[in-house]
Amino acid sequence: MSMDLLIEKIRAKNNPTVAGLDPKIEYVPRYIIDKNYSIYGKNIKTVIESIFEFNKGLIDALCDIVPAVKPQSAYYEMLGYHGAKLLDRTVQYAKEKGLYVICDVKRNDIGSTAAAYAEGYFDKDGYNVNSITVNAYLGSDGIEPFKKYCDESDKSIFVLVKTSNPSSGELQDLRLENGETIYEHMADMVSCWGENSIGKSGYSNVGAVVGATYPHQLTELRERMPHAFFLVPGYGAQGATARDIAGAFDKSGVGAIVNSSRGIMCAYKNSGTSEQNYAQAARDEAIRMRDEILSVL
Amino acid sequence: MSMDLLIEKIRAKNNPTVAGLDPKIEYVPRYIIDKNYSIYGKNIKTVIESIFEFNKGLIDALCDIVPAVKPQSAYYEMLGYHGAKLLDRTVQYAKEKGLYVICDVKRNDIGSTAAAYAEGYFDKDGYNVNSITVNAYLGSDGIEPFKKYCDESDKSIFVLVKTSNPSSGELQDLRLENGETIYEHMADMVSCWGENSIGKSGYSNVGAVVGATYPHQLTELRERMPHAFFLVPGYGAQGATARDIAGAFDKSGVGAIVNSSRGIMCAYKNSGTSEQNYAQAARDEAIRMRDEILSVL
Repeated sequence: MSMDLLIEKIRAKNNPTVAGLDPKIEYVPRYIIDKNYSIYGKNIKTVIESIFEFNKGLIDALCDIVPAVKPQSAYYEMLGYHGAKLLDRTVQYAKEKGLYVICDVKRNDIGSTAAAYAEGYFDKDGYNVNSITVNAYLGSDGIEPFKKYCDESDKSIFVLVKTSNPSSGELQDLRLENGETIYEHMADMVSCWGENSIGKSGYSNVGAVVGATYPHQLTELRERMPHAFFLVPGYGAQGATARDIAGAFDKSGVGAIVNSSRGIMCAYKNSGTSEQNYAQAARDEAIRMRDEILSVL
Repeated sequence: MSMDLLIEKIRAKNNPTVAGLDPKIEYVPRYIIDKNYSIYGKNIKTVIESIFEFNKGLIDALCDIVPAVKPQSAYYEMLGYHGAKLLDRTVQYAKEKGLYVICDVKRNDIGSTAAAYAEGYFDKDGYNVNSITVNAYLGSDGIEPFKKYCDESDKSIFVLVKTSNPSSGELQDLRLENGETIYEHMADMVSCWGENSIGKSGYSNVGAVVGATYPHQLTELRERMPHAFFLVPGYGAQGATARDIAGAFDKSGVGAIVNSSRGIMCAYKNSGTSEQNYAQAARDEAIRMRDEILSVL
């Protein structure tokens, strides 16, 4: 079971943290850009190779500390079609280093189209990641093709339930006529989609995205969906603390993986270390974050 | 205003149809694949070049009949990173031929990430399409970055309101405590996002996706959101007829563009013409569809 594999990797490293790989060229140390500029000149190749070198340095520094990475597709798509190859190189490198790869794509569409997305992200000939995020506004049709890969090819998905952004409540917090909120109803749909793929860990291959910025809902949803593993964004740059995420975990301290993107990638800027030490600074921050999270479990 | 531009193109061709470009290699005539195979051999390049040639033939045959094309990103992403360049080539070719390009990506994310998507799809250095589809489960944060491009750079977006797939009601039809359905509430959010960008056509740059497969809701939503232009999927292969889409239009026969993908792309298979005539068959089907739609307005 794919979610079991993620949980094994979390246990092996004693670290329920996923490092977001959301690179912008502004995050890349100047010396890396200068070196590539001297080779490729004023060309998109300078941007692409610089970001890849940056990602690679981060992966090398983090791969014995964190169990998983989460490339956010938008930061690759931002670079047009060049970004797609950069994403693929990043994914393949992270997998070579033994990391579980969650591609944050939030895809959603009608059944036949969702099947095309599932092939693109889960197939051997596609990006072949371990897991992706999906948006279920379209209901089951948009989930089934991904679930098929979860069941047959050892993949997992994380469905958006309660997102971390300030305006998430505009739709998700609305109350239905039965008194439930939309996100609670979504949580029940997710539980239902996962009920046939519960692994030995007690968690299914259909997980949920629940933001750390809403600690009350996080705790409530942990109880409501006991077999859904949580991907928890919002820690660090978005403002949530370790105390805020405690409710995402079950009594055994399992049940969630907490994401940090800018906090880890840009640690060298925040800590004031030299840019040459960006990878070490990222590693130090990942260790600090791990220890902080473990302290509240 | 970008939506005005689309409406002008629809008027100029007297055709409220958008041709979906959702290519699968199975749709491409054998003679095109054979030719490319003889050049590139058993290689992804055979697939990519065959699909591009197919798309190009369709665009050439349709560009004086239809005002717009809608590439569905999933069918390009299905081909991994190779597909991203294929999408870009397809988009640029369609724009050269004067077509309005709606890229069907259904993107959605938190504010900073939505800004990265907006840059990727709307910027000169990115795909630079006229319009994209978006999913607003995350509320305003995920819409504002796209709206900024709509207001400042003459782009438009279509927000998912009531989708065409069979399970769309699982979430979208649920009733809120005030008696409204979720899709009605979404419709009101869309109207609100569009209210500062209403062009001379009377329609804003923030449109709505409403499926032809739900004619009753289509009519209801046309009334509820008078300034939102509709992108209407579901005609043809998904089962909706011209009569079903009549309610999407206002009293002047404006207000919507109806998509057909497989119906047009695979017209040569459905009509039993030889595969060499695939482009002519697509053109004939686009004309037939145009006339059928115009007959109910």
